[in-house]
Amino acid sequence: MTSEFTFELLARDGLARRGEISMPRGAIRTPAFMPVGTAGTVKAMYLEQVRDLGSDIILGNVYHLMLRPGAERVARLGGLHEFARWPWPILTDSGGFQVMSLASLRKLTEKGVTFRSHIDGSAYELTPERSIEIQGLLDSDIQMQLDECIRLPAERSEIERAMEMSLRWAERSAVAFGSQPGKAMFGIVQGGDQPDLRVRSAEHLAAMNLKGYSIGGLAVGEPQSVMLAMLGETLPALPVEKPRYLMGVGTPDDILKSVALGVDMFDCVMPTRAGRHGLAFTRHGRINLKNACHAEDSRPLDETSECPATRDYSRAYLHHLVRCDEALGGMLLTWNNLAYYQSLMAGIREAISAGRFADFAAETTEGWQKGEALRKAA
Amino acid sequence: MTSEFTFELLARDGLARRGEISMPRGAIRTPAFMPVGTAGTVKAMYLEQVRDLGSDIILGNVYHLMLRPGAERVARLGGLHEFARWPWPILTDSGGFQVMSLASLRKLTEKGVTFRSHIDGSAYELTPERSIEIQGLLDSDIQMQLDECIRLPAERSEIERAMEMSLRWAERSAVAFGSQPGKAMFGIVQGGDQPDLRVRSAEHLAAMNLKGYSIGGLAVGEPQSVMLAMLGETLPALPVEKPRYLMGVGTPDDILKSVALGVDMFDCVMPTRAGRHGLAFTRHGRINLKNACHAEDSRPLDETSECPATRDYSRAYLHHLVRCDEALGGMLLTWNNLAYYQSLMAGIREAISAGRFADFAAETTEGWQKGEALRKAA
Repeated sequence: MTSEFTFELLARDGLARRGEISMPRGAIRTPAFMPVGTAGTVKAMYLEQVRDLGSDIILGNVYHLMLRPGAERVARLGGLHEFARWPWPILTDSGGFQVMSLASLRKLTEKGVTFRSHIDGSAYELTPERSIEIQGLLDSDIQMQLDECIRLPAERSEIERAMEMSLRWAERSAVAFGSQPGKAMFGIVQGGDQPDLRVRSAEHLAAMNLKGYSIGGLAVGEPQSVMLAMLGETLPALPVEKPRYLMGVGTPDDILKSVALGVDMFDCVMPTRAGRHGLAFTRHGRINLKNACHAEDSRPLDETSECPATRDYSRAYLHHLVRCDEALGGMLLTWNNLAYYQSLMAGIREAISAGRFADFAAETTEGWQKGEALRKAA
Repeated sequence: MTSEFTFELLARDGLARRGEISMPRGAIRTPAFMPVGTAGTVKAMYLEQVRDLGSDIILGNVYHLMLRPGAERVARLGGLHEFARWPWPILTDSGGFQVMSLASLRKLTEKGVTFRSHIDGSAYELTPERSIEIQGLLDSDIQMQLDECIRLPAERSEIERAMEMSLRWAERSAVAFGSQPGKAMFGIVQGGDQPDLRVRSAEHLAAMNLKGYSIGGLAVGEPQSVMLAMLGETLPALPVEKPRYLMGVGTPDDILKSVALGVDMFDCVMPTRAGRHGLAFTRHGRINLKNACHAEDSRPLDETSECPATRDYSRAYLHHLVRCDEALGGMLLTWNNLAYYQSLMAGIREAISAGRFADFAAETTEGWQKGEALRKAA
């Protein structure tokens, strides 16, 4: 185990990269998918299961954790790893994104943002410095600068203003974070759907020589083609030897296409949230277990899987659980979805090492399309 | 493995009995607690966990299963064991109790009961014959006669009418069940809080030479003392060599006191339902994890337990999960509660064999009272 945060590139295939982050709490194989553990729990999963699926790192949300149970309380209880029983690396966001989407009475200034909790209305302030302080109290291994994320579509002037302020906040965050060899703070590239603003943001952050770079403000309402175009503009402006994290993305297809452009890390609520709503991600595409066509289908989701949720339970039983809103339905489908995502990432890493990433992506996409076409015809 | 349903008494200690039911699908160690798997799932648990805790048998509810997914559908899918992935014995109720408590537009006649589903309003009929047919379609191992269960307090004339009709329904159910050597149909003693009616019901059923006897219509609103008094009247009127099942009971204390009177089998939603509502059953009594006093308590529920949910997670974390209504809270507390119930049953069985059941009951009760007194004082 290393005492410092390091990133090593192990293989490249086109723009796609296979690598490994080393940190005191463990290694992160990239491209990596990070399950979202919003409030110190990956919903409807035991964290042992999450680990067993091949997750090297999970994500925690500063906004949720600062409201409940509170960052100072988590610190008194030994930090988030001890609290939630996850001894491996944890990445935290800065809280900014959820303040914008969940909190009420938001007021944004150069200093930071004040808001009221969506739970009990109590007042909070989040500044770049306070966000880093909270992430430190949680003992987060990979921390994010506070930024301002704009939903698309938006006016260029508004995108530019938010991007420039996010850069000033990156500087303040870096000062607040200081020197912590075993941990990392990532800067966040903003700039909406404006290529030149994206490049300006990336170049400014690159000059700060941070340990890693996030790409924020994508998958916020724009078509996939715009997201990929922005990645195409942004990634070449970032240092090749640092990890790149595409925040909040995405579908398996988004991941394949973003890896192809050089992204190393992903997080998304999709596999967990979709699982709680009856949707299964599989080798054969998406299967909506709510549909009546599954009611007497005794086949499992995928008999070749190593995941018990995928291999051992009939679609008929899953359909029944989902229809009855039984907890086990969400437990099994979340388990299946995270298993599928992590097996996809393992396949991606192996393919990059073997120099056949493009073939892997094409075969994987064909599997989804074939399965979905079959179900449509049935 | 036996091809016939048999019951062997292994030890007696006062009126308490230790025994074993043998059936083609497995043995049931008594006194037994049967976790409730209402709609083919013990809520918020993987059935592997339920089995690992020492559960020899689970319960399924005819009312829920006949509405969703439907008994004929379960039969086409290979029966309830195959559908829910539980190859060991399953006991089903007759559906009558839930028709009375959940369904709308009920109409009860000598023939049976018609009602409308609480889910979509569609019309159903349940007769003694149809209930046995449904339980057969589910492939239930221990089936219940349809009965009419009266809430207490009630008029004696009403209790007597329902008890007498339940006896006539027992006769019809026995004819419908016929001869099935590897399975059993239990008759249900009714009679409310009227000792002579209880005895009349028990004696009539005893004369039918059924394979087992349920005591119904208790824990339906009366004080514990009345329940125990009725058991004291009823059990001596039942054949000693047949298993006795006290339906829908109860708290750990109810179980201890009923075992002392000679009950062999129990089922109750309490450990699972209470778990989903933040209440933990432990050696040290009940712990309400919602209470703020647990917010920074880093101790587990019981560090001496073999159950990971009980031993490994802090009360502070459980409190947080419960407060945030996170699925994992219900998963962990249900797991803890079923583990506690099954360890209690294992302790009861061992104590009966050792001829020290009264001491075991006193020590167990003292442990609950001490823990609860400590928490009250704190």
